[in-house]
Amino acid sequence: MLEQTTLYQEIHQQPDSLARLSGEGRAAIAGLATAIRAQDIDNVVIAARGSSDNAGRYAQYLLGIANRLPVALTTPSLFSVYQRPPRFASRSLVLGISQSGKSPDIVSVLAEARRQGQLTAALTNTPGSDLAQHADHVINLWAGNEQSIAATKTYTGELLAIALLSSLLADDGEKIALLYKVPSLVQQTLDMNSNSAQTAERYRYMQECVVIGRGYNYATAFEVALKLKELTYTIAEPYSSADFLHGPLALIQSGFPTLVISPSGALSNEMQSFLQQLRQRDAEIVCISNDQDALALGHKKLVLPDLPEWLSPLVAVIPGQLFAMHLAYAKNLDPEKPRGLRKVTETR
Amino acid sequence: MLEQTTLYQEIHQQPDSLARLSGEGRAAIAGLATAIRAQDIDNVVIAARGSSDNAGRYAQYLLGIANRLPVALTTPSLFSVYQRPPRFASRSLVLGISQSGKSPDIVSVLAEARRQGQLTAALTNTPGSDLAQHADHVINLWAGNEQSIAATKTYTGELLAIALLSSLLADDGEKIALLYKVPSLVQQTLDMNSNSAQTAERYRYMQECVVIGRGYNYATAFEVALKLKELTYTIAEPYSSADFLHGPLALIQSGFPTLVISPSGALSNEMQSFLQQLRQRDAEIVCISNDQDALALGHKKLVLPDLPEWLSPLVAVIPGQLFAMHLAYAKNLDPEKPRGLRKVTETR
Repeated sequence: MLEQTTLYQEIHQQPDSLARLSGEGRAAIAGLATAIRAQDIDNVVIAARGSSDNAGRYAQYLLGIANRLPVALTTPSLFSVYQRPPRFASRSLVLGISQSGKSPDIVSVLAEARRQGQLTAALTNTPGSDLAQHADHVINLWAGNEQSIAATKTYTGELLAIALLSSLLADDGEKIALLYKVPSLVQQTLDMNSNSAQTAERYRYMQECVVIGRGYNYATAFEVALKLKELTYTIAEPYSSADFLHGPLALIQSGFPTLVISPSGALSNEMQSFLQQLRQRDAEIVCISNDQDALALGHKKLVLPDLPEWLSPLVAVIPGQLFAMHLAYAKNLDPEKPRGLRKVTETR
Repeated sequence: MLEQTTLYQEIHQQPDSLARLSGEGRAAIAGLATAIRAQDIDNVVIAARGSSDNAGRYAQYLLGIANRLPVALTTPSLFSVYQRPPRFASRSLVLGISQSGKSPDIVSVLAEARRQGQLTAALTNTPGSDLAQHADHVINLWAGNEQSIAATKTYTGELLAIALLSSLLADDGEKIALLYKVPSLVQQTLDMNSNSAQTAERYRYMQECVVIGRGYNYATAFEVALKLKELTYTIAEPYSSADFLHGPLALIQSGFPTLVISPSGALSNEMQSFLQQLRQRDAEIVCISNDQDALALGHKKLVLPDLPEWLSPLVAVIPGQLFAMHLAYAKNLDPEKPRGLRKVTETR
């Protein structure tokens, strides 16, 4: 039965795992914030792959906007395959993000950063891992064992850890307080989307789609697309709405399926005009939003609670996880055994 | 007739436009190299979209490996939509890349960089553009008017300008000399792939594919995928072979079409084992390479001349451009009029 699968359980464990992280994990995150201030860090370099790289995209927006820190996603092969690591700019924080902490290319970035005397940190669900051993600061995700090959609770854990780091660094009491509500917001989102199995049925024969988000939810677009690929073998390509207008818009023809993540915020007007452009081209739209005007433009709606835009990626991914899981079932696929994947992928 | 279309002509103008750039453009590029040295620049931030963003990916590898400069691709919406630009780390070069020099979000990054007192440069085919007006150093691409909506000669121009900048900055006479051979290497590649129309026919009914490259040719994978999307409306998703193993590998089933860019170099062994994994899953492979072992694993081969890996993106994209153009014809599509695109896309 669906409810007995580890994927279903791990998706529904998220309120608990996130509550554990904000409790047990806060001290380590505060320690990193203190080090960032003490060392006058002026830029952040992130090394990650897969879902963790998507968490890194959230950090680009949140640390950029809230803390005015420029965040670069590094190219691990410079450090591993080519063995020609760049010289980090002075006063960099080099942050490795990895559920398992095992991928050699990500470990090699942290090892080099330490050799160059930069501040290093690891965000991982495996505090005894290789990655953690190369880090000055280890932030445990406290997600418990994640068995499903498709990451869910470790992804939202990574987002929450980044949001806590940003808010502690800014010493913003209001934001910190709001972050303690995330577990209940996630529970609310799970409850609001109890009809997602029915929603997914319409896409039983969908072979390809695009997933679109911009700004804070660029990360969500990547992560939902990855879940669709891993679990349903749908060709799901993520895009920012801005990049999409620079070329890929040509793909859209009548009935072309799009998932659009568009919570209310600074992008509301732009995303609405984007949704209208999709409508004019007769695209099919699944809309993930808490904005009634945006939802009204979707053929199917996945609903979010009201919350500030900066926090929205923590809940906007939830209906995407549910949709991908239910679509796998609708397609008679086993989400416990994605074709040809293992939980830990070691790339050099 | 095909030969009379602007797309065909612009693809075949590349030897000339690149020769013009290395002649007329060298002084401006040398001027930027001098400024980088004089100001002791220790990191580069690039703002770009579409094909120009793909050129930025090449810069990440080339400036990283050859000049040990960390290169970040920035997120323009921080500067435009959110109006919360990060503080650039001290001693940054902020480089805007844009054929038209018009997109307001890219212009806003350079305007902010200048306000913060950073070194700014524009790489553009339109030296009188808004973007150029916000830059301390303007590098003209000298590509002549590019009319086709799918960028070709401006993309290779951007790559060559970046390669010249890297080699002049390193004061590497051997590399600079090699760069003057690029026009003839591009001509050779065009000649070697005169059968690409025939190759493309097999994919007349292809609806989706993945395009894979890693390292220097991660950029090529993105650019070839973009050409396929713009010209043939194929869902073509770019990947690094390493990222592909972290999840999307699940997509591959018997006959799934893949384009793999795998010129000889530091990644030869890895790409070959990757190609073998694709073969084991019975994927269809179009291989772009100059490595006989890699080519032998492809169902169809698009051939490159011998050249060092760092230079390979300048020619590896050429058979991709030809393949996409001929596939558009095989599909009875008009590459002069991609559905719903304009040449200049202005996003904020």
